[in-house]
Amino acid sequence: MHFFPISGTCCLPLAYLLDCEIEFSCALGHRTVESVGENVVEVKAGDLVVPVVQRNCGECRDCKFKGNACTKFPAASLNAMPRDGSSRFLDKDGQPLHHFLFASSFAEYTVVDVTHLVKISPEVPVDKACLLSCGVTTGVGATMKAAQIEEGSTVAIFGLGTVGLAVAEGARIRGASKIIGIDKNLEKFEIAKKFGVTDFVNPTSCGKDSVSQVIREMTDGGADYCFECVGSTSLIREAFDGSRQGCGKTVILGADLHGSPLSIHPLEILAGKSIMGATLGGIKPKQDIPHLAQKYLKKELRLDGFITHEVSFEEINKAFDLLLQGKSLRCIIWMNR
Amino acid sequence: MHFFPISGTCCLPLAYLLDCEIEFSCALGHRTVESVGENVVEVKAGDLVVPVVQRNCGECRDCKFKGNACTKFPAASLNAMPRDGSSRFLDKDGQPLHHFLFASSFAEYTVVDVTHLVKISPEVPVDKACLLSCGVTTGVGATMKAAQIEEGSTVAIFGLGTVGLAVAEGARIRGASKIIGIDKNLEKFEIAKKFGVTDFVNPTSCGKDSVSQVIREMTDGGADYCFECVGSTSLIREAFDGSRQGCGKTVILGADLHGSPLSIHPLEILAGKSIMGATLGGIKPKQDIPHLAQKYLKKELRLDGFITHEVSFEEINKAFDLLLQGKSLRCIIWMNR
Repeated sequence: MHFFPISGTCCLPLAYLLDCEIEFSCALGHRTVESVGENVVEVKAGDLVVPVVQRNCGECRDCKFKGNACTKFPAASLNAMPRDGSSRFLDKDGQPLHHFLFASSFAEYTVVDVTHLVKISPEVPVDKACLLSCGVTTGVGATMKAAQIEEGSTVAIFGLGTVGLAVAEGARIRGASKIIGIDKNLEKFEIAKKFGVTDFVNPTSCGKDSVSQVIREMTDGGADYCFECVGSTSLIREAFDGSRQGCGKTVILGADLHGSPLSIHPLEILAGKSIMGATLGGIKPKQDIPHLAQKYLKKELRLDGFITHEVSFEEINKAFDLLLQGKSLRCIIWMNR
Repeated sequence: MHFFPISGTCCLPLAYLLDCEIEFSCALGHRTVESVGENVVEVKAGDLVVPVVQRNCGECRDCKFKGNACTKFPAASLNAMPRDGSSRFLDKDGQPLHHFLFASSFAEYTVVDVTHLVKISPEVPVDKACLLSCGVTTGVGATMKAAQIEEGSTVAIFGLGTVGLAVAEGARIRGASKIIGIDKNLEKFEIAKKFGVTDFVNPTSCGKDSVSQVIREMTDGGADYCFECVGSTSLIREAFDGSRQGCGKTVILGADLHGSPLSIHPLEILAGKSIMGATLGGIKPKQDIPHLAQKYLKKELRLDGFITHEVSFEEINKAFDLLLQGKSLRCIIWMNR
């Protein structure tokens, strides 16, 4: 997961804002609206919604025009808390608890700003809908919105976790001719085949000086698209070096919070390479997540394979353990089931 | 000019390859085919052509698919010389002279590989056609192919030479809402207005800590597109910092051959920014230069303003001087006029 590994346990999300009170219905990451604030008209009690970290007010220039970095209320200034800075949670001693990334999903009830909610068709099963809240959308979305992969493209994916496999699923949908998966966890290779990955590279035994060299050889000059889905500056560099001279696009979906900066000489870019980042794959949540849900209902987007485990809320720590051990993709956490 | 400043004197080009012999007709950078090699069918004697540095075989994967880095014969391996490595020029002592960038335009006759030639409509006046060989095409092309500017976008251009002004012209055609020109040469501001530049920043007297800060303030958060048209790593960094959080694209058209690498932390990119390079603006010469010529004939693309001086071939050094002094945009060098 690109922002916080624990999100892997459902698609986690979020923690934020007033105006919209939501009852947790079944799967974390997918909720039923319990009640709404007086100015909220976009959703109503009973609606099924997906909470998302990425704010989407729909009114600011960025929501209306390009990108998906809503600027109505700069996220950095909010510290992932409600707009007024106060919490909607108290601990057992009555002291305020911080919200988590605007949604605070791991609770029976939460309060989320409507700008962080996406209304979704009730036809989508809740355990599939919650996958669209973060990781799967990040990967699939990146192939469609950020990278805009063309049919026949070659794709290399660094890291075959949920985000990486969702990139593969998106690349498959877009008609990529070759999808190369790179991971040190060999167990991921069998899983990855189900998501459209056609070729595999284990960096620890590839027999070359670098993974990028292997990618260049496998693609006769470099992959059209390289996705970094781990969060390592050195892997971003490998991805860039494995991308095609003249048109190769490196898409950063992971982030090395404490890592070193990326050092690239302009001449390495000048001939036409590019590097781009994409939170949530570059999608606009309210516009694009319902579109992905429709793709699922039409059986164009496959979501089932991402669910490897299911636990009750009381077993939530087991979900974290599975994720840390690299054994799970998405573990659905059920409450009141 | 992004590759070699002397190209500013016409649109210079090139130096390269056998198969196609060309008589210089009037303006360097625009030529009439004198004779062709036995396997050449694309052009014939009498055709008007524009020689280009960027090879375009039309047969390799890259020419057929994405980007404009033709890979049939890797340019780096050719040292800007004919395919067989031998020269078509001799000095006065009969010793071989190296070709210059595949075209060697500053000569009455030259030999150019057909992959470096673009056939162009004879309706285009030769002094305008030659502008499409390099600098103007780089700037205009970058707005259309590399950046793909949308209507209503904000654009910042670092460096108001021919490439930068061609970016402005392209941005104007694409319907940009604000086009900011940045240059230390104040004389460029009046000229730039004619190319659609709406706002100006002189970095030496902008009164802020950095140009990027000024750009962010002028665009309420950063420009959608920042073009670096000088060739300075520090300016690329300024361009990146002035680009919009969440969607800003920095396009590198200049290159700091001996400069330092660019250092950017992945987290600075993650939210959706991107950096890309584009030689010749990312255009495929044989496909896109005739398209630009048609735009000129339809009066959609304005070329006249780029021609600031005209000299005879005997005065070629004057053309170089004007360029080095920052007094010219394009100086047409006429022969046998």
